[in-house]
Amino acid sequence: MAGDEPPTQEVAEMSVSEGVSAASTGSGEVVQWSRYSRRVLITTIVNRPDGGLGLVGQKISVGGWVKTGREQGKGTFAFLELNDGSCPANLQVLVDASVASLGQLVPTGTCVLVEGELKKAPDGTKQTVELKVEKVLEVGTVDPAKYPIPKTKLTLEFLRDHVHLRPRTNTISAIARIRNALAYATHTFFQKNGFLYVHTPIITTSDCEGAGEMFQVTTIFSEAEKIERELKQNPPPSEEDIEAAKLLIKEKGEKVAHLKAMKSSKEEIASGVAELTKAKENLAKLEERAKLKAGIPQKDGKVDYSYDFFARQAFLTVSGQLQVETFACAVSSVYTFGPTFRAEHSHTSRHLAEFWMVEPEIAFADLEDDMNCAEDYVQFLCQWLLDNCLDDMQFMVKNYDKGAIDRLKLVASTPFERVSYTEAIELLKNVTEKKFENKVEWGVDLASEHERYLTEVIFKKPVIVYNYPKTIKAFYMRLNDDSKTVAAMDVLVPKVGELIGGSQREERLDVIERRIREMDLPVEPYEWYLDLRRYGTVKHCGFGLGFERMILFATGIDNIRDVIPFPRYPGRADL
Amino acid sequence: MAGDEPPTQEVAEMSVSEGVSAASTGSGEVVQWSRYSRRVLITTIVNRPDGGLGLVGQKISVGGWVKTGREQGKGTFAFLELNDGSCPANLQVLVDASVASLGQLVPTGTCVLVEGELKKAPDGTKQTVELKVEKVLEVGTVDPAKYPIPKTKLTLEFLRDHVHLRPRTNTISAIARIRNALAYATHTFFQKNGFLYVHTPIITTSDCEGAGEMFQVTTIFSEAEKIERELKQNPPPSEEDIEAAKLLIKEKGEKVAHLKAMKSSKEEIASGVAELTKAKENLAKLEERAKLKAGIPQKDGKVDYSYDFFARQAFLTVSGQLQVETFACAVSSVYTFGPTFRAEHSHTSRHLAEFWMVEPEIAFADLEDDMNCAEDYVQFLCQWLLDNCLDDMQFMVKNYDKGAIDRLKLVASTPFERVSYTEAIELLKNVTEKKFENKVEWGVDLASEHERYLTEVIFKKPVIVYNYPKTIKAFYMRLNDDSKTVAAMDVLVPKVGELIGGSQREERLDVIERRIREMDLPVEPYEWYLDLRRYGTVKHCGFGLGFERMILFATGIDNIRDVIPFPRYPGRADL
Repeated sequence: MAGDEPPTQEVAEMSVSEGVSAASTGSGEVVQWSRYSRRVLITTIVNRPDGGLGLVGQKISVGGWVKTGREQGKGTFAFLELNDGSCPANLQVLVDASVASLGQLVPTGTCVLVEGELKKAPDGTKQTVELKVEKVLEVGTVDPAKYPIPKTKLTLEFLRDHVHLRPRTNTISAIARIRNALAYATHTFFQKNGFLYVHTPIITTSDCEGAGEMFQVTTIFSEAEKIERELKQNPPPSEEDIEAAKLLIKEKGEKVAHLKAMKSSKEEIASGVAELTKAKENLAKLEERAKLKAGIPQKDGKVDYSYDFFARQAFLTVSGQLQVETFACAVSSVYTFGPTFRAEHSHTSRHLAEFWMVEPEIAFADLEDDMNCAEDYVQFLCQWLLDNCLDDMQFMVKNYDKGAIDRLKLVASTPFERVSYTEAIELLKNVTEKKFENKVEWGVDLASEHERYLTEVIFKKPVIVYNYPKTIKAFYMRLNDDSKTVAAMDVLVPKVGELIGGSQREERLDVIERRIREMDLPVEPYEWYLDLRRYGTVKHCGFGLGFERMILFATGIDNIRDVIPFPRYPGRADL
Repeated sequence: MAGDEPPTQEVAEMSVSEGVSAASTGSGEVVQWSRYSRRVLITTIVNRPDGGLGLVGQKISVGGWVKTGREQGKGTFAFLELNDGSCPANLQVLVDASVASLGQLVPTGTCVLVEGELKKAPDGTKQTVELKVEKVLEVGTVDPAKYPIPKTKLTLEFLRDHVHLRPRTNTISAIARIRNALAYATHTFFQKNGFLYVHTPIITTSDCEGAGEMFQVTTIFSEAEKIERELKQNPPPSEEDIEAAKLLIKEKGEKVAHLKAMKSSKEEIASGVAELTKAKENLAKLEERAKLKAGIPQKDGKVDYSYDFFARQAFLTVSGQLQVETFACAVSSVYTFGPTFRAEHSHTSRHLAEFWMVEPEIAFADLEDDMNCAEDYVQFLCQWLLDNCLDDMQFMVKNYDKGAIDRLKLVASTPFERVSYTEAIELLKNVTEKKFENKVEWGVDLASEHERYLTEVIFKKPVIVYNYPKTIKAFYMRLNDDSKTVAAMDVLVPKVGELIGGSQREERLDVIERRIREMDLPVEPYEWYLDLRRYGTVKHCGFGLGFERMILFATGIDNIRDVIPFPRYPGRADL
């Protein structure tokens, strides 16, 4: 195979719990070569406790994109600030004019793979170490006049029009590392606690009641186009064609009858029958083709979905909860973590048409277990970021939200307050120093302003509100003994308000059937869901965490479109 | 809050690398209470090295579903085989008739939460320990006459008609644990090696060329229905309505003119102008409503997608590769792991309409790095199952595939063979002892029978075939110096054939533009993809692993519909 072997190939062995951007590489004075590319990751140099000093004198290759490049000493050498995405920090790279044409290296966005020796940086400079380049192995140039994201300060809004290039910015790459850390922390938390990860379906024929409008998934249009093309190339048979085909059958039939009457040979009769069969097949084909119609298939004035891929209407899931319950009611502790969808025309900074949700579901557990799990999970996520992404968090603090790290520390270390909905309403009613836009009244859902007031002003820490009025919650939530409230709970945190919504599920068949009727829902689509209560029913509970909400909470970023790699919202689905 | 505290609440602290179904709990003689449900997981008892002996005498609660129940001693007591999904093994539970009505406990599928004392099982029995029940805390009964999945041996095909209940069977729950383990192993492997997990979009407006037919995502139908309902309730304005509204404007206009001419007071004129404005607004509203039409919006005889949610046609992704490349070309080592979709009408045991793919992408890396990564990843997965799911694998060996564990061991420990496509064709041409159905010829893609012959018969181990003819591969694969082949590679394994497909990507702008033209593809939709080559281009490579294929390979299960929780295929999307 092509390609030179790199000088050495040590496996980059970082402990799992430390994660990728761990501050310590912990492997003494040996440089760690990336196992699947011919270079050393910059994080393994600059994020050592000694800032890379212990590696001085070693020959290495590094690759990355130039953040800032400047020619100095009248063009005799250049400094490049190189970033490879492994951490927010850059490695300073020094290139002599004798080694390469400096002009093509310095533009922001240039990609280089360089080989050289790690040197101690001169005293009094910001860097601990720098790379003295001996050989430029690869260059991917940039025409600075055309580069869509030059070095100047760009707004996040501007970057949304360049989703394919924005990961090269400090902000979007820091968010990508934080998002990655939170995803792995999520899996680690649930795996450690014995939960099985279940892939609930994306395409669904169920509706998780009340969750919102759904996108439809269909092949109706492409099938219709296919038929239209096909009919243009090969027009359907005319009535005359069909009449002629029928005539042929008649003739062939008469021939067979004649042969039989004449007591012809077996062979002759067989051959006549074969001709008749062929003529019949031909007619069947023509009649089948004659049925083909251009356009959307219709029946009784409505779209006929029996022609659709799944032979019925299908949608993108709004939640994996109902489906993951089938596994909770079989293997007891499970979670799903996947994309969910809402076809709502909201243009706010808090809504996406496609977003990710984490939804655990626990059997033999009640609302208190649910709250315990939610609290531990959120605290685990916060602590994980403090342990694994401190450099990225410092970047967010410096550039976006002074309080971001303090908020993580507060949430990671403070037991969450727990108040009933009824108590929360009382507290909010007694507020005098603020006028709410939405009314505070038992039986009406809390608005975002109320939720934030509870967590930010009244308690100054995360709050779990539980036992909501049944009239404002879904049918599957367990009815409490008061017959007025259900065992639902929301976790509210500073900065974003509601982060988690969950409930104990109604496990009593008669009660859930009554609730479905009460809420005027059709029973038939939920028969499979009721089966879980019919056969070996179990107390169980679960919750959903909006993954992007968690990232907003952690980073202090304001617009949800900036914390998902490829945001989808009304009118926009780039790439 | 409601609910009694369990006797003790020790955190179930299993090491991450051991995973959930670890054989050893390693915490001495203290029973481990599940942290978020009031019980002890059965795996933490029966999978101890001592089979639970060290816990004898302890008071515990366990919950689960009865696999087999039988009354004995003339109805004086009953044995229940209880399974909670934490491992394939059951715990034997002994209930006296004095404790509970035995008849409702013994039917298969009954759910119980019971409290009691762990006892040493009598010598000569299969069990090491059993639970002597003192209290039945909860029962979810089953009517055996109606239970859709009774104890009798059920076929996997039958179970597909009961996807909501099939996780309660030994086979589907074992597959769920294996699937969970492979998912977590995937994340662990890439995180350990410094890859960032990137969520590529599910809804896309790009087409990963040649990957197959796509599902369309739309709100066109629901919007049309909404308008239809709305028009029925509130018919559109008639021509007369609009004429009248115009007349009113004329009248109000004349009135204003008259007031001005009369030099009326400011207040009078202002009031007249206000009336005129209102009349104009009213007309505008009427005209807007008059445009509303029932049915699918059309323009020039085609569906007008400017009315669709994203103001253009949108689809479900067939691969996250092109999008994840934007991150590889910015933060260097990334992977995506998400659902992908094909709207193909294939009814085979190897195809799903919705399935999961793992797609890493590495910058500063070539085809050899790609092969190294793919080989290490597959070996890591196999070793992980041997280390963490041996009990489930033994179940598969006993019931489905005698060779499953041996196959994992072989793949985990044997370096993969690497042959070029050209060499592979030569080898296959020389085969005399078997007649292939598909022709073996340079320039034609390998068929499944060829792939399996290479890995199962010729090499008897995994094989990587690389450097395929460019004519049978996608435009984005890097052209080799011979100008005939591209730097593509497929990993072939026994039992399933192709498990992984990957390539080095074409990083040269001029070459990839030429390839797009050569293959008669439109350039415009790929402009963003070309930008990655235009600005700071980098050598990079990646591959895709079909996650369900990997599970088929590991378990020996034949039909892909049985290794995904909720299979989607033509005509079927249950739940």
